Amino acid sequence: MREITVHLGLGSNQGDRQTILRGALERLGAVPGVRVVRVSTLRESELVGQGPPQGAFLNGVAELCTSLSAAALLDVCKALEVAAGRRVPAPRNHPRPLDLDILTYGTQRIDSRQLVVPHPRWRERAFVTEPLQELGVDLDLLATLTAPVVIDDPAALAARTAAWLEGGCVIGLVPTMGALHAGHQSLVQRARQECDRVLLTVFVNPLQFGPNEDFAAYPRDLARDVELAQQAGADAVFAPSVGQMYDASFASHVGVGAEAEGMEGAVRPGHFGGVATVVARLLAMSRPHVAYFGEKDAQQLAVIRRMVRDLGFPLRLVGCPIVREADGLAMSSRNVYLGPEDRVASTVLHRALLSARHAFARGERDRDALLARVRTVLASEPRAAVDYVELRREGDLALLPAGEVAGGRVLVAARFTAGARPVRLIDNMSLLPGPEEL
Amino acid sequence: MREITVHLGLGSNQGDRQTILRGALERLGAVPGVRVVRVSTLRESELVGQGPPQGAFLNGVAELCTSLSAAALLDVCKALEVAAGRRVPAPRNHPRPLDLDILTYGTQRIDSRQLVVPHPRWRERAFVTEPLQELGVDLDLLATLTAPVVIDDPAALAARTAAWLEGGCVIGLVPTMGALHAGHQSLVQRARQECDRVLLTVFVNPLQFGPNEDFAAYPRDLARDVELAQQAGADAVFAPSVGQMYDASFASHVGVGAEAEGMEGAVRPGHFGGVATVVARLLAMSRPHVAYFGEKDAQQLAVIRRMVRDLGFPLRLVGCPIVREADGLAMSSRNVYLGPEDRVASTVLHRALLSARHAFARGERDRDALLARVRTVLASEPRAAVDYVELRREGDLALLPAGEVAGGRVLVAARFTAGARPVRLIDNMSLLPGPEEL
Repeated sequence: MREITVHLGLGSNQGDRQTILRGALERLGAVPGVRVVRVSTLRESELVGQGPPQGAFLNGVAELCTSLSAAALLDVCKALEVAAGRRVPAPRNHPRPLDLDILTYGTQRIDSRQLVVPHPRWRERAFVTEPLQELGVDLDLLATLTAPVVIDDPAALAARTAAWLEGGCVIGLVPTMGALHAGHQSLVQRARQECDRVLLTVFVNPLQFGPNEDFAAYPRDLARDVELAQQAGADAVFAPSVGQMYDASFASHVGVGAEAEGMEGAVRPGHFGGVATVVARLLAMSRPHVAYFGEKDAQQLAVIRRMVRDLGFPLRLVGCPIVREADGLAMSSRNVYLGPEDRVASTVLHRALLSARHAFARGERDRDALLARVRTVLASEPRAAVDYVELRREGDLALLPAGEVAGGRVLVAARFTAGARPVRLIDNMSLLPGPEEL
Repeated sequence: MREITVHLGLGSNQGDRQTILRGALERLGAVPGVRVVRVSTLRESELVGQGPPQGAFLNGVAELCTSLSAAALLDVCKALEVAAGRRVPAPRNHPRPLDLDILTYGTQRIDSRQLVVPHPRWRERAFVTEPLQELGVDLDLLATLTAPVVIDDPAALAARTAAWLEGGCVIGLVPTMGALHAGHQSLVQRARQECDRVLLTVFVNPLQFGPNEDFAAYPRDLARDVELAQQAGADAVFAPSVGQMYDASFASHVGVGAEAEGMEGAVRPGHFGGVATVVARLLAMSRPHVAYFGEKDAQQLAVIRRMVRDLGFPLRLVGCPIVREADGLAMSSRNVYLGPEDRVASTVLHRALLSARHAFARGERDRDALLARVRTVLASEPRAAVDYVELRREGDLALLPAGEVAGGRVLVAARFTAGARPVRLIDNMSLLPGPEEL
């Protein structure tokens, strides 16, 4: 039976600290499959972080030898903490009679729901690093076991998510083309609340750009994206090259139905085939439980919803509300293209959408009357050349017949062509305010 | 901390059995998070299965209460077995001082690589069922926790494979259209050797049948398929209805490149789009580590290889050798359509393929000369109407130019139209015999 060397962090700041720590190690050493090899000097330290007034900790590290899995050892440690009188769940930063943390488990990297090894904050704490050094642990080697944040190789991505799945983690995926802004960060934050692990992908997908579109010019700044993603709570960023996503003989495509027709599908032929293909690939590779998309690209969301349902990917799709600048412009990585005058003019999209919502709130139910109001507002801005204004059913964005409507979503696209380069913006709004807008 | 009631099977047939069992329970009860609540009468039983001559077992069941996970408890039990002198790995059906089996873990169903609970063979053994009854366990309830073999709901399939992934199982997938024969069984047997869990799917996929093809007539017998699948070693069979796979608004499709052109792609327009779509869906739903396909459908295998690579499914594809009847006919679910005379005539396909291989072995390297030999043999059978004879590159089945070839695969298709209904057969063979054919 293979035995693994383990380093266990010890802490106590309640009761007879020394006796509690010694007693716990004695019980631990009596567990079948566990031997306590040696224990570092115990030392005093103050609480890290904010908490109620409390005594100092007595800390140290024990070296164990065990045939138990890391998860099994964790369960035993939890039971020892409970037996020592610790409350479950333990309130954060309150005094505790016994605190046991698995710091290392051989040279294995563990990234499960219950346990991350090496311990994520081991480097920040002298009461951990000093005893580890006293026990002769190679801290440089330990540092190499800490999981990297940025992944570019598809096989490494699949391995990482496989470990998460095996660890029982709920995985949240936030696919982006980078050039992150507060809208993307809101997706990461939502994922952070709902999932155990959050993966953000950064890939400017050539398949979804037309020949005369801005693929080459699309803004790219991976270092900044990684920083913003981590700030918002992402655990990992997958940022492959085009060659890593599509090899030279790449030939497949994923097509969907009516959701990809009209609006953006009409203006940008092939666009949604490229979107469906890359998203199918990202889902196949990363196998998330939940995937987060912004409602700003409402038709893209409808296309992906259809693809996910048809191909049977076992996940939940979450559409997140549009995040807007203070003056109402929907956040977009392409907003940086706007010259100062177009930037001012661009707010007409939001005003036009609001005019439909206000009219609906006042009782207007006729589809074409609502659309006419939007067009009138848009026409008031000479810098905006309208591509389309449509009122579609919520969800799948199916066409709504002329006549009375009970609700729906207004979608607009316009070009601002007066600046140095033409900029195309899209926006949309439900006729009925969502809960987050009330 | 939540505690779970566990039933632990106890066994010993080496050394002082009673003392060993009592000692193990005493050590177990001292483990943090474990209480031994009560123990059934211990009783004698003989070895189940074949093994060297050995003494009778002393068996019983202990009821525990524990805050440990089932996996953690398993690790502790293994350590106790080792401490009692058991060899690791323990030779099958040899005498053992201590045998501990987790029979139940609350009302949870566990299906991990290390542990299946309830214990898969609990019902077959009186030395398990009698002590369980003595301890008041509801055996009917226990029976309902045993995992069903046949699944028809896509959500239930995804949940099952999610549990397997979380349990660290390597999953093998064998997609079929049912009407299983020894060829399909060879795929399951290969998967059984390589994987922890084997999933066979049975689905006659309407997307891959043309309007004049045999979708309605295709042979279907799920009960027989389930029996053959289990015989070959499948753990579960996924057999959805058409409505469960494709809802009324289904609209997506997966397309691939050159692999789908020519040969079957030319004779059966749309066929490979249907194949790629259903396989993508099965892979998305079941997330296998390995998927097994027969080489008889060589072009299908090339299409799927392309799709899997392009969409980034993180799995290994295995093509398995064609299984043939004694007279050389490649096994196929459609062979049942053949009338007696066509059945005899159908062996011409195999003879024609062999003629190319023999010619190649004797030094013939000219592409068209090799193909001419195949055509000559086929022409000797007036009941066979040839659809195509081709020599393609191994793997992706790319076209080979006229002139000298260093190897390749010969593919043939022919119709036998003299019987009550026309029957179309395909077959193929590498010019170089594979290791399994030598």
